[in-house]
Amino acid sequence: MSWKIKAQLMAGDEIALGPGKADLLDAIAATGSISAAGRAMGLSYRRAWLMVDAMNRLFAEPLVLTVRGGPGGASLSDFGRAVLGDYRALQARLEKASGGLCAGIAGRLKG
Amino acid sequence: MSWKIKAQLMAGDEIALGPGKADLLDAIAATGSISAAGRAMGLSYRRAWLMVDAMNRLFAEPLVLTVRGGPGGASLSDFGRAVLGDYRALQARLEKASGGLCAGIAGRLKG
Repeated sequence: MSWKIKAQLMAGDEIALGPGKADLLDAIAATGSISAAGRAMGLSYRRAWLMVDAMNRLFAEPLVLTVRGGPGGASLSDFGRAVLGDYRALQARLEKASGGLCAGIAGRLKG
Repeated sequence: MSWKIKAQLMAGDEIALGPGKADLLDAIAATGSISAAGRAMGLSYRRAWLMVDAMNRLFAEPLVLTVRGGPGGASLSDFGRAVLGDYRALQARLEKASGGLCAGIAGRLKG
């Protein structure tokens, strides 16, 4: 048994940022490419591209910078790194806050 | 824009408890029936029943008590009320913990 604590930032019906998009940002920073990042996460290129497009569209500045007109490199903007850092801090804070109550509920599961 | 903070208790691949199941428990307590609770949440009877079945199967004791052999009443067990209360407390604690960081990230969305 385990708890999943998911923080999703909604902009209307769209998820501007959540666990999957944060992991994709990390993977883009690590691989330097949207397609390689998507592959590493088991996503199609189209799916990874749509996630990047949503983030870049919904935030005030692009989180991911790409080389126009080619399949070339991608990287995080300073803005993207700052948003990702705050999101990871939020996740850590949520994990920490949940501690005792999570264990208390999980301890009532069978077996 | 708004944040959704979802706490999901996983038992293997199944969600033993999450926002939807907690709301269903509240609706069962309010209506005294699985079908009425499902209707109130826009769920089919089958879907509501499967959610109750998963909770009752995965926890050490049933959360929902039903009258056998009929479509009749359903109610929360003391155990179910305790689990639901702890889950609501967990949600409140997560909301409280998230405060400042959530606002800081959301404030970077467009417009």
